[in-house]
Amino acid sequence: MEIAILGGTGDIGEGLALRWAQDTDHAIRIGSRKADKAERSAAEYRERIGDSNSVPRIEGDANPSVTKGADVVVLAVPPYYVTDTIETIADALEPGGILVSPAVGMSKTDAGFRYDPPSIGSVTELVDRAAPDEVPVVGAFHNLAANRLATLEADLEVDTVVLGDDQKAKATILELAGAIDGLRAIDGGALENAPEVEAVTPLLINVAMNNEGMHDLGVRFA
Amino acid sequence: MEIAILGGTGDIGEGLALRWAQDTDHAIRIGSRKADKAERSAAEYRERIGDSNSVPRIEGDANPSVTKGADVVVLAVPPYYVTDTIETIADALEPGGILVSPAVGMSKTDAGFRYDPPSIGSVTELVDRAAPDEVPVVGAFHNLAANRLATLEADLEVDTVVLGDDQKAKATILELAGAIDGLRAIDGGALENAPEVEAVTPLLINVAMNNEGMHDLGVRFA
Repeated sequence: MEIAILGGTGDIGEGLALRWAQDTDHAIRIGSRKADKAERSAAEYRERIGDSNSVPRIEGDANPSVTKGADVVVLAVPPYYVTDTIETIADALEPGGILVSPAVGMSKTDAGFRYDPPSIGSVTELVDRAAPDEVPVVGAFHNLAANRLATLEADLEVDTVVLGDDQKAKATILELAGAIDGLRAIDGGALENAPEVEAVTPLLINVAMNNEGMHDLGVRFA
Repeated sequence: MEIAILGGTGDIGEGLALRWAQDTDHAIRIGSRKADKAERSAAEYRERIGDSNSVPRIEGDANPSVTKGADVVVLAVPPYYVTDTIETIADALEPGGILVSPAVGMSKTDAGFRYDPPSIGSVTELVDRAAPDEVPVVGAFHNLAANRLATLEADLEVDTVVLGDDQKAKATILELAGAIDGLRAIDGGALENAPEVEAVTPLLINVAMNNEGMHDLGVRFA
């Protein structure tokens, strides 16, 4: 499978790229607004996973270029960039390709982090509204700690909730998420259930802020 | 310590009463709107934990009566009853006694359960506003599955997030929650952080609804 990770040069995109490159056979395409930045990240990731194949497993290019031909496109950009980014790649998206939304809207107060979704209810649903009709949207990876995901020596042993209205697309992402060692992919139902999933991200930060020794937390349903 | 559990005749109140009676030395007072209903539940709980002491560990009475003299009062009533219930017990609350709020507002759609808080942001904050000024409010036990909690043979091995603006009161409830075998009490910070904690409850139901073999779920921060 060919996986494009838009915003793959940092944060959660970095970890997803490294983990999929390490744990699966899929081709990983790092996207960024600037092609040279994406290429530099791809080269760094290849080095980190020890990829010296003649056909490299991880490549980098501008967002629209990596989107073209991709079976799965992960929108690993900050929430305030999702609609803009979708506009720039809309023509490049394959009909039947799957757009994956991991972004979460948060704000900060003196006490901690607040879930701060767009008026439609969640960033996942915002992505669904902005995406072309023929491209199914799946929500996933909202609650993963970027540092821990990108630290390949770190055990994950956490869950990720996968949401979608297109059952086939959701099943594909459930499998793709579960292919990462230590990550358990769980069906969260319809996209409409996204707010309760996204809200876990500020909760994890608040818990980490208030408890010595807890950091880069994930969630486990038990 | 003397713990009053208002709405202790069912749901999460039942499990808290049984677990505290089994795992700690505290005196448990079951409250209900009707004294005879509370007394019947208390008798049933005594039987279930095999309590045949001459001074019974669990007793039942009307909500105001069990509130009088209690160090901790757990408001284990549905969210739409919390303000009413506080009115009926306000005069009986001890200054310095701690009022604990585990209730969560939810609504149901075709897709699943939605977090549906009061306009102030969370039920926990609503309780804080309704409580007498000299009574500190602590949020806890929001995400516990009632069935599992009340089934004494069931392992818990889950977390509960404890929230409060009064540090001493929060510390007391952290200890009281952690005294239940298998329950890990975690500091969630200020009451203002309650919405993200309460929203986990509909998430747990949605996850259980969409995954075979997952039910009565709790959450674990890992």
